[in-house]
Amino acid sequence: MGNAVDSTVYVHPTAVCESQNVGQGTRIWAFAHVLDGAVIGRGCNICDHVYVEGGARIGDRVTVKNRVMVWEGVTIEDTVFIGPGVIFTNDRYPRSRGLPEVVGRYGHKESWLVTTTVRRGASIGAGAIILAGLTIGRYASIGAGAVVTHDVPDHRVVVGNPARGIRWACICGVPLDGNLCCPRCKRRFRLQADTLVAAE
Amino acid sequence: MGNAVDSTVYVHPTAVCESQNVGQGTRIWAFAHVLDGAVIGRGCNICDHVYVEGGARIGDRVTVKNRVMVWEGVTIEDTVFIGPGVIFTNDRYPRSRGLPEVVGRYGHKESWLVTTTVRRGASIGAGAIILAGLTIGRYASIGAGAVVTHDVPDHRVVVGNPARGIRWACICGVPLDGNLCCPRCKRRFRLQADTLVAAE
Amino acid sequence: MGNAVDSTVYVHPTAVCESQNVGQGTRIWAFAHVLDGAVIGRGCNICDHVYVEGGARIGDRVTVKNRVMVWEGVTIEDTVFIGPGVIFTNDRYPRSRGLPEVVGRYGHKESWLVTTTVRRGASIGAGAIILAGLTIGRYASIGAGAVVTHDVPDHRVVVGNPARGIRWACICGVPLDGNLCCPRCKRRFRLQADTLVAAE
Repeated sequence: MGNAVDSTVYVHPTAVCESQNVGQGTRIWAFAHVLDGAVIGRGCNICDHVYVEGGARIGDRVTVKNRVMVWEGVTIEDTVFIGPGVIFTNDRYPRSRGLPEVVGRYGHKESWLVTTTVRRGASIGAGAIILAGLTIGRYASIGAGAVVTHDVPDHRVVVGNPARGIRWACICGVPLDGNLCCPRCKRRFRLQADTLVAAE
Repeated sequence: MGNAVDSTVYVHPTAVCESQNVGQGTRIWAFAHVLDGAVIGRGCNICDHVYVEGGARIGDRVTVKNRVMVWEGVTIEDTVFIGPGVIFTNDRYPRSRGLPEVVGRYGHKESWLVTTTVRRGASIGAGAIILAGLTIGRYASIGAGAVVTHDVPDHRVVVGNPARGIRWACICGVPLDGNLCCPRCKRRFRLQADTLVAAE
Repeated sequence: MGNAVDSTVYVHPTAVCESQNVGQGTRIWAFAHVLDGAVIGRGCNICDHVYVEGGARIGDRVTVKNRVMVWEGVTIEDTVFIGPGVIFTNDRYPRSRGLPEVVGRYGHKESWLVTTTVRRGASIGAGAIILAGLTIGRYASIGAGAVVTHDVPDHRVVVGNPARGIRWACICGVPLDGNLCCPRCKRRFRLQADTLVAAE
């Protein structure tokens, strides 16, 4: 089943990989399904039971934990972490396509497909749900179980349903202290307008 | 593995379909498992990693997105949309059946099995959780990530944990404006007691 | 694929069981994956699409419903019920391991791996999310969709995001009445300090 696209790509014997665009060193684990037209970069870890649809784009060195579904219209930049069971969406007002009243709407993608971008270095906690049409900023940290209904700024930590910002995260993922300093790696930041930037 | 019950039913080579009650034109995708005794209508789309238990009933032209589990006791009427990762339940006070103190309770279904109905045209957003014993009304829209603890009236839009009503949805899925008119398809509604009905 | 470790262990033909530590009478269902180094006790029911990682420990007569992922660092005691789609976690500040700034952190487990324990007889409702580092007490009941951010005492019922205690549950799972008596099995309890204990 696993038809490796490159000798450095590992596809578990139970996985199905139909894409020809999987980068070097990427590993695709058990019962995962990567569809034709999906683009996955180098050095990614695509875990068990993951589904990547045609039209989805995943950068380099991305971790996609178990059971995540990445739909058409979702773009994940380099070195992002997508936690187990995270759910993306790409339609704000879904209905069954078998409903006569919506046949017109699903006839062309512009009338239903809404895109999502997860920017470099962000992490999305276990089981979080990302509504369609949003951008998750660089190095943002989405808490486990958050339901994200608005864009998330760079480095912002959000939690809850609906998700709200509660603090800031370092590049390394650890929450910053009250002086916007990382207690672990000692990087320092400052707020410029509402944007967190490196302190020097 | 895929033993199609009808030449117009498509079963992906990695899926397992043990039911003899799958209607014409229904498609069952990768790593899905439809058990003996499950009833699925015509023209349905049963996506990757879905699980349909014996005793579950699914109508015609229903979309069941990836990873949904449909248990015994759950009835889904025609033209419903079940979003990715939606979770149904059928037991209000679950315990392991290996716990000696509950052996009696699990001996007969009447003492634990509680039924759920999703009525025609409704949609359930990504990752929503539906507690046991509820009815989701016709054309209702359950928001992504909602945890539904009460019945949902026809056309009602609910969000949050626990889910609460915030507005009304048209048959086509789009939220109605303040005049109970659909900005997309121009259908008009009115409230009669607490029930939304067509305006003429 | 299914290499049963004991003639009394059932492994579905589509499942992958790589562990040699699965107890008598345990059943492992379709598309589940039990990794080498996972420890599973006797008489368990490991349902479809479940993932049990090396280093995870599951006791006897545990029900692990569909799609649950049990990670390294998670210990589940005897006669626990883990509902469908429940998500555990084992890293408080996850980032992609491909991010240069975290290479040091993921070099040794002590700097990221945080353990979780679910004690005897507890049940975790459908789709609940358990943050890393917590203990779920004996006979506790976690509501469906709860996001658990703090330890849960024995017998406590918690719901919501974040989860908060709302009442107490009997050993059999049924909520206690205002006199701390079980309306179903008539067991009586009392509070001693903040701990629920048998009344006798």
